[in-house]
Amino acid sequence: LPNYKIVLSYDGTGYHGFQFQRNALTIQAILERSLEKLYGKKIKVRAAGRTDAGVHAKGQVANFFAPASISEERLPLALNSLLPKDIVVLGAGAVADDFDARKSSVAKIYTYTIDNGPFADVFIRNYAWHIPRPLDLEAMKRAASFLLGKHDFKAFQGAGSSVEDTVRVLYALDIERLGSKTIVITCRGNGFLYKMVRNITGTLVEVGLLRRLPQEIPEILERKDRRKAGITAPARGLCLEAVLY
Amino acid sequence: LPNYKIVLSYDGTGYHGFQFQRNALTIQAILERSLEKLYGKKIKVRAAGRTDAGVHAKGQVANFFAPASISEERLPLALNSLLPKDIVVLGAGAVADDFDARKSSVAKIYTYTIDNGPFADVFIRNYAWHIPRPLDLEAMKRAASFLLGKHDFKAFQGAGSSVEDTVRVLYALDIERLGSKTIVITCRGNGFLYKMVRNITGTLVEVGLLRRLPQEIPEILERKDRRKAGITAPARGLCLEAVLY
Repeated sequence: LPNYKIVLSYDGTGYHGFQFQRNALTIQAILERSLEKLYGKKIKVRAAGRTDAGVHAKGQVANFFAPASISEERLPLALNSLLPKDIVVLGAGAVADDFDARKSSVAKIYTYTIDNGPFADVFIRNYAWHIPRPLDLEAMKRAASFLLGKHDFKAFQGAGSSVEDTVRVLYALDIERLGSKTIVITCRGNGFLYKMVRNITGTLVEVGLLRRLPQEIPEILERKDRRKAGITAPARGLCLEAVLY
Repeated sequence: LPNYKIVLSYDGTGYHGFQFQRNALTIQAILERSLEKLYGKKIKVRAAGRTDAGVHAKGQVANFFAPASISEERLPLALNSLLPKDIVVLGAGAVADDFDARKSSVAKIYTYTIDNGPFADVFIRNYAWHIPRPLDLEAMKRAASFLLGKHDFKAFQGAGSSVEDTVRVLYALDIERLGSKTIVITCRGNGFLYKMVRNITGTLVEVGLLRRLPQEIPEILERKDRRKAGITAPARGLCLEAVLY
């Protein structure tokens, strides 16, 4: 059976995350239902990142073994005609049999968007965290510099995860203003713990609001205690931008 | 009673337009319900532009006579706490008694957004018209140049309008690419006929798709026949950006 890699974008607002759940609408369930309609049999997909409820994607990657060969040009068109308007396949390609969307990935890029205007922008209300108070970006950047590189990120791991090895490498953690009122935090790393980007964002925002000092970050990392880090930023601001192989 | 001017932004996706309709959810109904909660009595609002179902606004302007004085800083906050998340008041101010949001306006700016990527961008699916085929922007700009200025725009007036004087002035009609796949048409004029911007956009798109020539525009204007002009672009791409006084 040919192994296909697909690149997906979705608005996660109406979904309980990527991964299949009994009695809940998930991206995986919708995608597998469309694949079943297309190929006439049940197909399992594997995704690079299990995005949580309300989290979005511009470049999620998944793979599946197809019972029939469809051209790289036709596959996205065929799937998009079966998918709802909030999920779109941007590309497809046959890959080697041992390609696994999750295990083969070497890095992922996530963005977190903050709407820093005085009033919430209605057009990004599902895609950004609205924080009307001013944020000290320089302080946030100093705090971010302590998170760059290889660290045990256990303090930034969400409760309910049973991952043993909590050491990850952050290659980039950029914070920039786009226009007059949008702030985008871009995280590039070799892997991310459960809720890690949202917990890092929440902590950086507390620094930006001057409720914490940038120099507290090294101690938070060292203590490996979730309670020492900041709040979890809401899911809606998070977007899986790209998966690198 | 003090006369208040408010500036509003809304995502029109879930509404049957601005203007009150019996048995349909409209921006006006929601806004007047919030004003009634705030002041404890029924209040009528007048808006500059009666946006249609599915049309958005970043700078709609309305005015109303308030039974009590509330500061310019507090009024938006108080109203926003009562409004749903897809309608936001961006500013408020006391104005002269004779200020009328519609009649006092001297110009309005509308934008029409086209998603010209090969696959529809899920994040702007309610805010843009997805046209996957290439558009000849230079031809569209030549067509637009014939529409600039003072003309009888009867051929671009939607059916069902009973306006007598169909002469309007278009001060600007700019077409530009934003990034690799978004095209924004900006219309600034002293007034707009029913569905005028959407009918102009549909005609320009037909030119961009090479189904019409730019030089057909003068004849369309001259004939004053709606059937000679192009299709009506879908409501979701249209946004009232600003009202000028």
